[in-house]
Amino acid sequence: MKYTPVSPDVIALLEEVTPGRVVVGNAINPDYSRDEMPIYGTHQPEVAIDVHSTAEVSAIMKICHQNNIPVTTRGAGTGLVGGSVPIYGGVVICTAQMNQIISFDEEQFGVVTQPGVLLETLKSEALKRGLMYPPDPGQKLATIGGNVSTNAGGMRAIKYGTTKDYVRGMTVVLADGEVMHIGANVAKTSMGYNLVQLITGAEGTLGVITELVLKLIKAPKLEISVMAPFADLDTALLAVPKIFKSSFRPTALEFFERDILELSESYVGKKVWPREVQGAPVQAYLLMIFDGDDMEEIDPIIEKMADFLLDAGAMDVMVADTVTKINDIWSARSAFLDCIMDSYKLYDENDVVVPIHKISEFVAFFTQEAEQYDFEVRYLGHAGDGNLHIFGVSNTMEEEPFKAQIHLWMEAMYTKALEMGGELTGEHGIGSGKISYFEDYVSERVIGLHAAIKEAFDPKGILNPGKVVRGR
Amino acid sequence: MKYTPVSPDVIALLEEVTPGRVVVGNAINPDYSRDEMPIYGTHQPEVAIDVHSTAEVSAIMKICHQNNIPVTTRGAGTGLVGGSVPIYGGVVICTAQMNQIISFDEEQFGVVTQPGVLLETLKSEALKRGLMYPPDPGQKLATIGGNVSTNAGGMRAIKYGTTKDYVRGMTVVLADGEVMHIGANVAKTSMGYNLVQLITGAEGTLGVITELVLKLIKAPKLEISVMAPFADLDTALLAVPKIFKSSFRPTALEFFERDILELSESYVGKKVWPREVQGAPVQAYLLMIFDGDDMEEIDPIIEKMADFLLDAGAMDVMVADTVTKINDIWSARSAFLDCIMDSYKLYDENDVVVPIHKISEFVAFFTQEAEQYDFEVRYLGHAGDGNLHIFGVSNTMEEEPFKAQIHLWMEAMYTKALEMGGELTGEHGIGSGKISYFEDYVSERVIGLHAAIKEAFDPKGILNPGKVVRGR
Repeated sequence: MKYTPVSPDVIALLEEVTPGRVVVGNAINPDYSRDEMPIYGTHQPEVAIDVHSTAEVSAIMKICHQNNIPVTTRGAGTGLVGGSVPIYGGVVICTAQMNQIISFDEEQFGVVTQPGVLLETLKSEALKRGLMYPPDPGQKLATIGGNVSTNAGGMRAIKYGTTKDYVRGMTVVLADGEVMHIGANVAKTSMGYNLVQLITGAEGTLGVITELVLKLIKAPKLEISVMAPFADLDTALLAVPKIFKSSFRPTALEFFERDILELSESYVGKKVWPREVQGAPVQAYLLMIFDGDDMEEIDPIIEKMADFLLDAGAMDVMVADTVTKINDIWSARSAFLDCIMDSYKLYDENDVVVPIHKISEFVAFFTQEAEQYDFEVRYLGHAGDGNLHIFGVSNTMEEEPFKAQIHLWMEAMYTKALEMGGELTGEHGIGSGKISYFEDYVSERVIGLHAAIKEAFDPKGILNPGKVVRGR
Repeated sequence: MKYTPVSPDVIALLEEVTPGRVVVGNAINPDYSRDEMPIYGTHQPEVAIDVHSTAEVSAIMKICHQNNIPVTTRGAGTGLVGGSVPIYGGVVICTAQMNQIISFDEEQFGVVTQPGVLLETLKSEALKRGLMYPPDPGQKLATIGGNVSTNAGGMRAIKYGTTKDYVRGMTVVLADGEVMHIGANVAKTSMGYNLVQLITGAEGTLGVITELVLKLIKAPKLEISVMAPFADLDTALLAVPKIFKSSFRPTALEFFERDILELSESYVGKKVWPREVQGAPVQAYLLMIFDGDDMEEIDPIIEKMADFLLDAGAMDVMVADTVTKINDIWSARSAFLDCIMDSYKLYDENDVVVPIHKISEFVAFFTQEAEQYDFEVRYLGHAGDGNLHIFGVSNTMEEEPFKAQIHLWMEAMYTKALEMGGELTGEHGIGSGKISYFEDYVSERVIGLHAAIKEAFDPKGILNPGKVVRGR
């Protein structure tokens, strides 16, 4: 790809559009050169602009389009596949200051919002109105624009689906600066090709999202967490498909093992989860959420669930039904990612998806595969939907051998996951970090169609180049 | 568009692929020249083939691609916008005999199915396993392939969403005959551009769907219908947004008026619904479904719902909780479409969507608009999601003036619906019947992107030409 370096003339044009906000060279916040997975490379942009409106984004895109300058959009930069890293330099548009919720429509269960609103803000503002935005990725400080751009998943997908299920419409600035409104705040549409769903998950390669129309639901009034310790991981994971085959419909269903829990509990400085039950050591845990509108509805379900778990081999069942108790038991789980990132000098990750009855087999596979390498393995997963988070970590290896070994391990895992009927990524996306795996493990025709769609939206290839699909 | 007529040589090639099933000329079933809205035109194909496998479809597409012959795919032909009509002749591929459900995956809540399986078959086979395929278009004799190709909606969309929310993966034969597998039977994916969602609703213009991986849910064990008569339509429709603002979460929420009910009840020969309550005439009705797993859960909801409806001005509330009673009250509603089609010589329809709190205003608008014309108006609607079915009908007019008047009326309705924040079509699609409205009411850029996506998938423009987006 051949792009034009940003010239002083272009900077002057940009300065007219966003006076006082065109930051250049070393003055650029170094955060704008990376996301949360720096192992895929950091790259300083030539220019960074915190944008405030659709009109500004449109004007910037027109200038960059005319001048053949790449544009990478970022929100909070919490991505995990290098998606917001400007690997070809150019201009970074940061939407974090477009952080206003424009309106709630309580009759149509919708919200119109700018893309820079944080997930936690959107959720809490909805909740004040008795509404819920259900997608629940672990990283609550991500922007909603970033969530839509990666089709973020999270823990509640088994009951409520993923981000794509809540995107009804959007305003998008196209590569040449034209502003396009698609979709509407209604529950049904069958109006031609689903451009809304095409741009959702496209990681900023087809357009810059500057406004979103999202679906909300009535918030359940109550939420209860159930945790169960097990003597071994296999017993815990075997229970998972049975939970669904029975009538249970948990909102979330997570699994993790003792070692990652211990690491995380010592990181957050709080010891809540049992390490042994009646003298026997605990090796694995299931953690569930159930929600509903009144205790009369939930209580019998929780009781049945507890009996079921004990029958399925749980060593104990604990119920958290107060805010304090719930916060306590979730604090370690919520800190897993930060804990890993703060505890290790080197880390890489994937988020493959496998059918839920094959999680156990897949865990055995990748842990055994890793035995030949020098890095350590940490993992946890959304047991309910088969979406795993598998880390290779090291404090002792050098970066190059670490990357080389991780690459072989990733290849083995992706091969196996696809063999099992799974997917390469459940919620993080392709970005630049997974692009070569995506190309290797998906048919040439699928890659070719990606390139053709990219060409249809962005013939000059200036939108987030080098992500999802390589430019010409 | 310039296509090549099907030559005897091509017929011989096709005969090698599907021996004994290549039907030509007058031997072709005349049903293959039309769907259920013949006012948009009927066109006899040159060749019709009932296909049996992905391999056959692939071989046919290769021949047609090489020879520049248009191919239109049809299922049961129950569409309402001319989508399966071969307006440029060529080959019709009928998938109705690809009617096998391949496998249920009860742990992953999925089903793999051929596209020719009827909606009612899929639903009943799922139910035998305690599972539900929730999308619920009125036409149960449609094929599931057709449902996916139009993103069919139906009555249960307010609780369960539309067809697109249940499509996890598919096998698609592309324009040149290449077979592409996309998606997987898992709950999460963030793997590049969402081709599954792009082909869903594309009405056969991007590829021929030959296998589907669909999501199912645990079937609720009980279903109860609630019906309420009202003295006037406005009072009934005013209650609708309030139902959602309160805690009620009906599975379906339909409205209709007395005149269409009377027409339909006399058509099915059964009189179930009240025409008056305590001597006062009924003018409009709401009809709801609630579902759940036990009566203890549903009963209090129904009681609250009844109180709510009476407060909101319902003249009475009736509950149907047995199969017989439920079938009785739904029989008239289910027959509306057939009844209209059998009762009138000329009919045309739209299925616009408007925000639910504007249904009443929209009904007033289009009935008043129609007063200047010679046709009659019949309508009903999915009150819960704002998706209306609005018919212009006549037994006395000639076809040309009917079409001319309908066209003006449609234009007025589409303009108004979009002004209100709605959509042109909620569940029927664009086909050929709505293509000029689609082009008029959507931005040039959106149409241009449709054309570019079409070009990316089908550069020769042989797949269902003249539908959704015009070819070159």
